[in-house]
Formats: sequence, C-alpha cells, structure tokens
Amino acid sequence: MSRTVMTLTAQDLAERLGGSLEHCPPDRIISEVKPLEEARAGSVSFLANPKYATKAKESAAGLIFAEATVDLGDHPVLRVKHPYWAFAQAIGWLHPEPDPEWSATPVHPSAVVGEGCRIAPGATVGGRTVLGKDCVLHPGVHIGDDCVLGDGCELFSGVVLYRRTRLGNRVTIHANSVVGSDGYGYVLVEGRHAKIPQVGWVEIGDDVEVGACVTIDRGVLGPTRIGLGTKIDNQVQVGHNVQVGKHCLLVSQTGISGSTKLGDYVTLAGKVGVVGHIEIGSRSVVGGNSVVAKSLPEGSFVTGFPARPHREWTEAQAALNRLPRLMKQLRKG
Amino acid sequence: MSRTVMTLTAQDLAERLGGSLEHCPPDRIISEVKPLEEARAGSVSFLANPKYATKAKESAAGLIFAEATVDLGDHPVLRVKHPYWAFAQAIGWLHPEPDPEWSATPVHPSAVVGEGCRIAPGATVGGRTVLGKDCVLHPGVHIGDDCVLGDGCELFSGVVLYRRTRLGNRVTIHANSVVGSDGYGYVLVEGRHAKIPQVGWVEIGDDVEVGACVTIDRGVLGPTRIGLGTKIDNQVQVGHNVQVGKHCLLVSQTGISGSTKLGDYVTLAGKVGVVGHIEIGSRSVVGGNSVVAKSLPEGSFVTGFPARPHREWTEAQAALNRLPRLMKQLRKG
Amino acid sequence: MSRTVMTLTAQDLAERLGGSLEHCPPDRIISEVKPLEEARAGSVSFLANPKYATKAKESAAGLIFAEATVDLGDHPVLRVKHPYWAFAQAIGWLHPEPDPEWSATPVHPSAVVGEGCRIAPGATVGGRTVLGKDCVLHPGVHIGDDCVLGDGCELFSGVVLYRRTRLGNRVTIHANSVVGSDGYGYVLVEGRHAKIPQVGWVEIGDDVEVGACVTIDRGVLGPTRIGLGTKIDNQVQVGHNVQVGKHCLLVSQTGISGSTKLGDYVTLAGKVGVVGHIEIGSRSVVGGNSVVAKSLPEGSFVTGFPARPHREWTEAQAALNRLPRLMKQLRKG
Repeated sequence: MSRTVMTLTAQDLAERLGGSLEHCPPDRIISEVKPLEEARAGSVSFLANPKYATKAKESAAGLIFAEATVDLGDHPVLRVKHPYWAFAQAIGWLHPEPDPEWSATPVHPSAVVGEGCRIAPGATVGGRTVLGKDCVLHPGVHIGDDCVLGDGCELFSGVVLYRRTRLGNRVTIHANSVVGSDGYGYVLVEGRHAKIPQVGWVEIGDDVEVGACVTIDRGVLGPTRIGLGTKIDNQVQVGHNVQVGKHCLLVSQTGISGSTKLGDYVTLAGKVGVVGHIEIGSRSVVGGNSVVAKSLPEGSFVTGFPARPHREWTEAQAALNRLPRLMKQLRKG
Repeated sequence: MSRTVMTLTAQDLAERLGGSLEHCPPDRIISEVKPLEEARAGSVSFLANPKYATKAKESAAGLIFAEATVDLGDHPVLRVKHPYWAFAQAIGWLHPEPDPEWSATPVHPSAVVGEGCRIAPGATVGGRTVLGKDCVLHPGVHIGDDCVLGDGCELFSGVVLYRRTRLGNRVTIHANSVVGSDGYGYVLVEGRHAKIPQVGWVEIGDDVEVGACVTIDRGVLGPTRIGLGTKIDNQVQVGHNVQVGKHCLLVSQTGISGSTKLGDYVTLAGKVGVVGHIEIGSRSVVGGNSVVAKSLPEGSFVTGFPARPHREWTEAQAALNRLPRLMKQLRKG
Repeated sequence: MSRTVMTLTAQDLAERLGGSLEHCPPDRIISEVKPLEEARAGSVSFLANPKYATKAKESAAGLIFAEATVDLGDHPVLRVKHPYWAFAQAIGWLHPEPDPEWSATPVHPSAVVGEGCRIAPGATVGGRTVLGKDCVLHPGVHIGDDCVLGDGCELFSGVVLYRRTRLGNRVTIHANSVVGSDGYGYVLVEGRHAKIPQVGWVEIGDDVEVGACVTIDRGVLGPTRIGLGTKIDNQVQVGHNVQVGKHCLLVSQTGISGSTKLGDYVTLAGKVGVVGHIEIGSRSVVGGNSVVAKSLPEGSFVTGFPARPHREWTEAQAALNRLPRLMKQLRKG
C-alpha cells in the first residue's frame, strides 16, 4: 500500500495550533496520530478528559495535546485550548487522504487481477487494488484505491468499497452495500461540528457474507474489523472502529455504534441497537429490537429497552400489562 | 430552472373532477397547487378536514376543493366528493414531471461544470444541472436534471440526486445515498392507494455531511430542507417536507416522518423515530431508540417509547424492574 | 425461463451425505428440493424437528432427510446426522445457480425490450430478461438474468434486480433499492454458519411502488411476494418467503422477518418489526416502532414492544409513568 509519509516537528504543531510546548524538544519529529495506548515515540496523542491523566502519563507518545490545567508530570505536552480539535486537525495534516485515482479503463492499469476473475462491464477497480483468484464483480461495483480482495469474493451490483478495504477469501457482499465509508465523528468548535478526518480502513475476514444495503464504516485511524465466518443481514450499520468477532450473526436493521467489541458467536437479532465503547461477550444473544447500553459478560441472553436478562424483561412486561388494573384496585382501597 | 407552466381554468377543473363551482368565475386561471397558507390568486388548494374551515376562509387561494357540506362563506370553492384526491390529481395536471433527459455523453451537453471539477468515468450529470467549482463525483454517481451544486461538493459512488436537488457549498454525500426520491404520499380512493404526485425538491445547506445509504425525500410541492452544518449518519431517513435546522446531528438509522420541523443544534441519537407534523425545539436531545410522538420545547432531553423527560424514563424503567416483586408481595398480602 | 434440470438418485444422495436409505429404491430419481407440504414424488424434503413427524409421514415427498431416531413408518427416508444441513447441500446440488450472463452491450442480446422503453446509458439488462412496453430504466439500473417486467415500470438509478425477479405492470422502484438478494439463511455445522442456498425469486404485483434503499430478499426455493397495489416506503426490509397481501402500507424502516404472511390492507407504521413465520390478518394496523411477535387476527390495532392491543399499551404506559410515585407511597406505608 503506497502512503506518503508526512511529518511535522513538535514546533510546527505548536505554531499551527497556537499552543505552547512543555518537556518536548521543538525539533521532535511527529509522523502519526495515535490513541494514547498505541502511541509511540513518533506519535502525537491527546487527552480530552482529565480523568485519563494517568493513562496519558504512561503513554509512550512523543507528544500529547492537553489543556493547560492538567498535570502530566514531565510528559512532553503541547498545551492547547481544545485537545480533541487539535487531534482532529493533526489527523488531517499527518494522514492526508490522497485524491482518488481514476483511469479511462474500468480497471485501473496499476490494479492486479487474479486468475479466473469475472469483472462485469460497468464495474470499476481503483489504483493498486489487488483481486485474488476467481472473484466476481457484478455490473456497477466500484472498488476504490489500495484495496485487497482474497480469492473467490463475489460483489453484487452497486457494492462500493472505499479505499484500503481488505476482504479475506470467499467474502460475499450483496447489492448496494457500502464498506469503508467515513465514520460519524465530529467535534463542536465555536458552534460548528468540525469533522474528525476518518483515515482508517475496514478488514473483513474469510467466509463473511454481507447482505444488501449494509454500511460498515472504516476506523478513525485503524481498522474496523468483521471476524471470520460472521454473517451480516440487510441494512445493518456498523460504526467506526467496531470489532466484531468470529461466527457472529447480525440480523437485519441492527446498528452497532463506534468502538464496540463483540466476541465470537454473538447473535444480535433484528433491529438491535448497541451503544458505543462497550463489549459484548462471546456466545451472547440479544433479542430483537433490544438496546444494549452496557457491556455484557459471555453467554448473556438479554432483551428490552434497555436490555436486561431475558427472563426479567418477560416478567416485567407481564407485570406491566397487569399494572393498570392493580392501580385501579389500589385506588379503590 | 426550466419548468413549463401549465394552466387550467376553474371550469376545466370542474369538468375533469365532476364537481360544481361556487363563487368562482369559470374562466379563472389556475396555475399551481398550494397548501392553504401559501396559496395565492392563481392557486388551488383543498380542505379535507372541516375543522380547518376558518383557515380555508382566510386563504388567498383562487379556488378551494371542498366537500359539499362544509360552509366556506363566499370563498370560491369547487365542490367535490373527495377533496384530497382532487388535490392529488390537480398536482399531476398542473405540475407534470418532465421526462428525464439523458444524453449519449455522461455529462449532459446543457449541464454547466465549474472549474476544477473531477468527474469520474461512469458518473452521469443531467440536463441543465450546474456544478460549482472543485466538485468531485466518484464513479457511479447519478445526478438528475436541473440540479444545482455549490463549490467543493463531493459525492461518493452510487449517490443519486433526483431532479431539482440543490446542494450548498462543501456538501459531502457518502456512497449509495439518495436525495430527492418521492415522498410516501397516497390517498385511499375506492380501495386503492392513489399516488399524490411528489413534485417538490430537496435543499441542503453549506457544510452538510450525509452518510451512506441515507434517504432524503423531496417535498410534495416545495422543499425538504437540511440546514447548514447539519451532519447525517448512515441509514437515516428524512421524509417529505421535513425542515431540519442548522448544526443538527442525526445519528444512524434515525427516521423523521413528513413535515416535521427541527430547530438548530438538535441531536437525535441512533435509531430515533419522530412522527410527522411536529416541532422539536432547538438544542433538544433525544436519546437513542426513542420515539418522539409530540412536539418538544427548546432544550428538551427525552428518552423512551414514547419519549418522555429522560429522568422520568429512567425512573420508570427502574420501577418497572422492581414491579414483578412488588406484585408478588401485594398478592401475599 | 431456462433452468437446467439436475437430478440425482436416492443412492447418489446417500453416498454424498454418508446416510442410509430406508423404504426407498436406490435408483429413485430426485430432481428438486421442496418443503414437506409442497413435495412430490421427485422431491426430497427434510424433517429437522421431530414434532412434525406426522406432517412428514403425510408428505408426498419421494424422500425425506431425517435423523436416525425419528419414527416415520414406512415413508422413504434417508437417515442423516443433520437433516437441515443435508437439505441445504441438496439445494446446492439440485438447484445450482448459473453464472451471470454479461454481454459487451448494456442490454444482453437475448433480452427482449418492449415498445416505447427508455433505457438510459449506464443501465444494464441481463440474459433472457423481458421488459414490457414503456418501461423506463434510469442510469445505473442493473437487471439480472431471466427477469420479467410488465408494462410501464420505472426503475430509478441504482436499482438492482437479482435474477428471476418478476414485476407486474406499472411497478415503480426508487433509487438504490435491491430486489431479489439472498435471504438470511444459515445452519450451524461444526462451529460454522453454513449457507442455505437461496434459489427462489421475488414477485411484485401490479401498481406496487417501492421506495429508496429498500431490500426485498428472494425466497429460499419459491417466491417472496408483494401483492398488487402495496406501497413500500424507504429503507424497508422484507425477508425471504414473506407474503405481503394487496394494498398494504409498509412505512419507512419497517422490517419483516422470513416466511411471515400479511393479509390485505395491512398498515405497518414506521420502524415496525415483525418476527418470522407468523400471520397478520387483513386490515390490521401496527403502530410505529412496535414489534409484532405473534400472529394477529383480522382488523387488529396493536402497539408496543411487544405489540399488544393499542388501548392496553396506552394504559400501561400511562400507569408506568405513575409507577415510581406509587412505589414511593407504598414504601412510606
């Protein structure tokens, strides 16, 4: 995958953001934006919520954006008014998205197409994209630049893969699904929702099947992942940085918010909603139309809005049906 | 925008609909269909619900379709059996949709393309459509006739703009979203759902971002509007004539029914449903998966099905969890 | 419609599946897979749940896959470990899906296009597909092989019809909708979700209108059906083998799970969920956001999660709002 490496010095960042450096040589080279836990010497990270100050102090980040008032010991810091907004801007500077590369031919000359592939008229394949053997692209499929498909993938009409999408072997995607679109990330700055650039990608494992009109957003900086053997029904939405395990079932119209993790063999029945940043343990089952608002241990079986153990929910609904009569009786005395 | 103006006399309408005129010269020229409050001398409007008779009497409409039994004083009226169906037919006669104009070239010869635009092979642009500067159309974008795009818009693969869609500057629309499709409007006539022609359009303000697989219906006669700076997540549905204010956040899988109005800085979390013909005040927040069934004042924070003040909903759910035990205790005595 | 007929003997199936035949001549010709109630002499069917043994005994199927322990009298049986998985494999062997047929021309040379059709550049029509008179295909429409469209159909940009889709007369389908995609059917075999091949089709009656980004899955073996005059709003999902009656209204973001039947004039308001394998009687109305978990008689009016008679639900919600106060009072004594 060809990506031009951009770098800035700590001093460059300080000037662009109007902030002041502490405990950091001004000529330190910064080449990437990373979350605190993944950051390295050449990374800049950010601390938006002071309660994570300890995590920030322990981070290997070469530089951290933080507000003036947070104590980070002698960790290299760039003091800014709005660390999250600084982070968003730094993504744009250090990880710029290249322009799409279109060619006069449907398959870009730099793309590599494996033996036995069938590419319909009207399908397009972007620059440097690699297709394995025996892939089938139906009319109107559009694959962006720098994608990698394994062997035996079939993409139906209207499927769109954004740049850098990675599919394993034998992945099937039904019509009009979108893989790798920008996640929903904004930061409110002076009354406007400023975009946090979404420069990650999507990785889909072997033997995954994706239904029609599904949307899977790419990660902010890294991957959104769908594990091997998982089956996704029509109109499911998967947010940025979500990690879905192996052999999961995501039934129609389900939505999973950003950064949530599912174990293996998780079943989300139809129309389930899952909030962001939680974990659902392996072999859990969530009943149809339920809303999961907190993490669940392995083997959970929950239902309702908000979701609770299935039996509790069933009993509560039965009780609710008797409640109006109970209230009448109590009123009568 | 080129639209042929069709006109009919009041007498023409009476003959086509089999109704009788009152207080109206038969040669009155009618050139448009309008709601009562927007109607002018050349407009025909309709009164379906007698409780709005006062509004009808005060309307400037040159003609009103009404049932025989409703007293409208000396207002010009065409008495018909089924005013709403008459209205639907009149839209078809007075606002006929022209056939789409396709050319052998991907960009219609009558379209105007601004400097610096990048149009991918396989994208199409309709008749008389105007693109501002520096727009990017990915492969498989289809823009209808008579659309107007501002500067710096980016439309990803598979985006479809129906005729007369208007985008501001720097509008981004992700893959496979549809803007300007017909709203869901029918009237039951003799056992069949007859279509109310949808001849309005969609207007999207500057700096709006629209996710993937979003649908925004055009208005019946006028615009559906998305205000400046609003951000719409994947798989959101916006019904006809909806008016969304500035800087709103509409999170994934939310649906807004027809003619509803949102103020500015409204947040609808994921999977929210909003009924039609209500108003949600500015800076309101609706919790995920909630159903808003009535208008909300500014600054509301509601959750649930139906939505109620967030704290009330939380307390009610906690109480519901304890209800089965309470009922057992009461039964024991 | 050209379909190569594949046949296997009972013995062939026994060898491929590693099972043993009972009461069945080994040279019996099997040419199709069918559910128990539709099976004929040349059909193989399956019994997964022993409680349907009586139904199996009465079936005209030439062969039934069943586990070793189930008593089926002298009915011809192939004893296998996993009857449902045997059924899935037999579909693949007896009903293989042909490769799609693409041509260098947008309209396949074997397709038949009626008088007055308007086919935009960039639309494609598959092999042996038949279009009636006066159909309109917008840019980017993709119609598969062996489809049949009646007269006066209009398909907007990005609509995808999978192979063998059948549309009546005057069917309108809005942009980016998908008709005939594979249903969501898997069987868990040794820790993996093995696909049940989906080889049925979709039939849509006259005067049906389908919104944007709708998905309608084809049946497993037979049709998914949408009855005459039914109107489907944006982002609705219809599962495999669903039978929707005439003149129904399916409002936006509603989902209907597999094999469910709706009568005529049924209204499902926005965001409704319906479980699979139930029946909703004619003229029933389901309130917005409700979840229908069991069959409903004609003329029902239900709301809630789970759906219950509308009035009961309204009263229960009102009581729920008063519940926290009641509990406080009871606690005080």
